[in-house]
Parts: sequence; structure tokens; C-alpha cells
Amino acid sequence: MSTLSGTDRTRIRRLPERAGTDLAALHEILDTGRICHLGVIVDGSPRVIPTGYGRDGDTLYLHGSTGATSLRATSEICVTVTHLDGLVLARSVFHHSMNYRSAVIYGLPRLVTSPEEKLAGLRAIVENLTPGRWDVARGPTRKELAATALLALSLSEASVKTRSGPPSDDEEDYALDVWAGEVPISQSIGTPVPDARLRPGVTYPTLR
Amino acid sequence: MSTLSGTDRTRIRRLPERAGTDLAALHEILDTGRICHLGVIVDGSPRVIPTGYGRDGDTLYLHGSTGATSLRATSEICVTVTHLDGLVLARSVFHHSMNYRSAVIYGLPRLVTSPEEKLAGLRAIVENLTPGRWDVARGPTRKELAATALLALSLSEASVKTRSGPPSDDEEDYALDVWAGEVPISQSIGTPVPDARLRPGVTYPTLR
Repeated sequence: MSTLSGTDRTRIRRLPERAGTDLAALHEILDTGRICHLGVIVDGSPRVIPTGYGRDGDTLYLHGSTGATSLRATSEICVTVTHLDGLVLARSVFHHSMNYRSAVIYGLPRLVTSPEEKLAGLRAIVENLTPGRWDVARGPTRKELAATALLALSLSEASVKTRSGPPSDDEEDYALDVWAGEVPISQSIGTPVPDARLRPGVTYPTLR
Repeated sequence: MSTLSGTDRTRIRRLPERAGTDLAALHEILDTGRICHLGVIVDGSPRVIPTGYGRDGDTLYLHGSTGATSLRATSEICVTVTHLDGLVLARSVFHHSMNYRSAVIYGLPRLVTSPEEKLAGLRAIVENLTPGRWDVARGPTRKELAATALLALSLSEASVKTRSGPPSDDEEDYALDVWAGEVPISQSIGTPVPDARLRPGVTYPTLR
């Protein structure tokens, strides 16, 4: 089993029993998520913005307009992907919690300039949104590629934290007549809504 | 209609047509979300962590252990709440997008010390998780309150950004035989799973 690198800031200090250590868990959290929260420092203050991403091997790709402030990052960034799996209702308000799986990645991003890597990175982002989509839709033109900034972030410094299962109440509280347990939460995909200008006969593709 | 304050960093530069300007939109995004992503600066680098929150009027509350690094923030923080509403599949890979509603709040947090405000803030956090829960569960002891750090963040500097609706393709691409449209995404609440040690006869409460 490949293990995550341990650095001072990826060591889980609060509730270390929730720390994951294997690379497979990191990949699973990233590959089943659709948006990340990107943290950058702008004028000395933190800024957190939601954005798409994709993974190719040990590299995470982020993209945006070449004019976007958040992608001008020339210093370290932090990328967090979180799955909320449920509410944990305890007998005391103090022990209320949530079940979740989250990944936090730190690093200095690299601006991708090679045309080959740029295509591969954008493909990873589009495929993470909807697998199979890259081969169905019209590919990027040279002008579109030039207008898109692509950042590559190594997965070499990352941490995984998860919580699952029932609440942990104080022993004496188990005697209380208070409902306790888990309320599962999941993401649902609805029925696709065709664009009003869709060409006749074009049906929703079977994607991977 | 109350409008959001405009500061340099809350002005939406990229795609300004997606900017929301009213306070009601901000409150709606916050009140229907369950987790936020908190951005802080630790040792000169950004850190983004998922956490619960609650709103009381014009104040957002965040809590954690008094030992948590991310709650030691004595400088500005950024709190982002995002709802992913759907995937936007365009005819070209370039115009793929997501439908979402997001709120970004900046400010210097205040450590809450007044016992009354601490209780009110924690109540807001628990009620945001599951409305009605505060009155059902055992309230916090003095010791539990002492172990909990509560941060208050004014909503005075915030921005709202949303996207909804179909893809925006280049005019010539509408002739392509490529499926395009929206794939809705929503959060589903599953069937509550009672704790194994639940007292006999205690049923899942009807919450507000």
C-alpha cells in the first residue's frame, strides 16, 4: 500500500484517529469529487474559491482564465476536496458531528506551458466532470487553449481525514431518551435537461 | 432590497454577470448549506478546511476545539459556502461549466467570550446542521463550553456568485450533433440510521 508523505502540516493533530494514510484513499476522494476549494493568498489575506479540477496520476490540474486573480498564484496554494456523507446526531449538542471524507493538498503550483500536457490536463478536468465527455465534444482550438491557464499541483504533500459511523456520546448520556444516530447525505444526479437548441435526434450519450 | 457592500476584493471580476448583489441571496446560500470551507494562513501558506457553521443575523459563527490551529486565526479569514447545482455540458469542451451558488465572506474574526453569545452562536451552528436539534439534545456543560472556541465573523464583506441555466456555446457550434444541456445535481437526505444503543421507544423526532 502506498502511503501519503508525512510533513508537519499534513500531520492530523486534531482527532488523529481520523487520519488516512494511503494514497488509494486520496485518489478515491479526488476521483469521486467534482469541485474543490482552492485557497490562495491575495494581498496578504486568504481567498477560497470553488472550482473544477482533474487528476492525472500524481498530479492535480486546475484551470481558469489567464486573467483570473486566483490563478496568478506564484506562491503556495491549498486545494481541499470534501464529501459530506452524513449528519451525526448525538445525545448531547456537544457531540454532534458530521461524517465526511476530505483531502487537503499543499504545494507550489506549476503553470503548464507544454501543449501536450495542457491538453492532457484539460482532458483530466473535463473527464472528472463527466467521464467520456472529452471524446464526444468539440476539442479546444488554439485560441481557446491560449485563453486558458492550467496549473499543475503535485499530490506529494497531502492529507486525508474521514469520519464515519455513529455518534460518540459520553457514557452517562446513553441513558437519555434522546434520538441519536446518523442521517446519511449523498449527491444525486437528476434527469439531464436537453439544451433548447439541441439538434433533432441527438440523444444523451452513454458515457463511461 | 438590502445590497451587499462592495469592496475591491468582493467585486466579481471574472464573469461579473454572475455576481449577486442582495443580502437575501447571501442568507439563502448560507442557510441552506451545511459545511463551509474556511481559509486561513498558517506559517505563510493558505490552509483550507471544511467545517460546520451557523448564521445569527449578520454574524456567521464557526467553532472548534480551543486547540485547533485553524481557529487560532488572529488575522483575516475567508469563509466560502458552495452549492453545486449541476453540470453544464456544452458542445465544445471549452464551454463546459457547472451551475452553482457560492458565497465568499472575508473578515477579521472575533473570538467570542461572552457566555450568552457563545450559547447563541453554538445554537446557530447546531440548528444549521439540523433545525430543532438544540432543544432536543442535552445542552452544553460549563466544561464543554470552556473546551469550545467560537469565532464570530461579520457578514459585512461578502460576495455572491451564481450560474444557472443551459450552456453558452459558440454560435457555429450549435450546428454540431453533440448532446448539450444540464445535468442537475442535488443533495439527498437518506433514511436515518438509529444508534445501536438507542433507548427502546425513542423515535426519530419531527424536527422543524
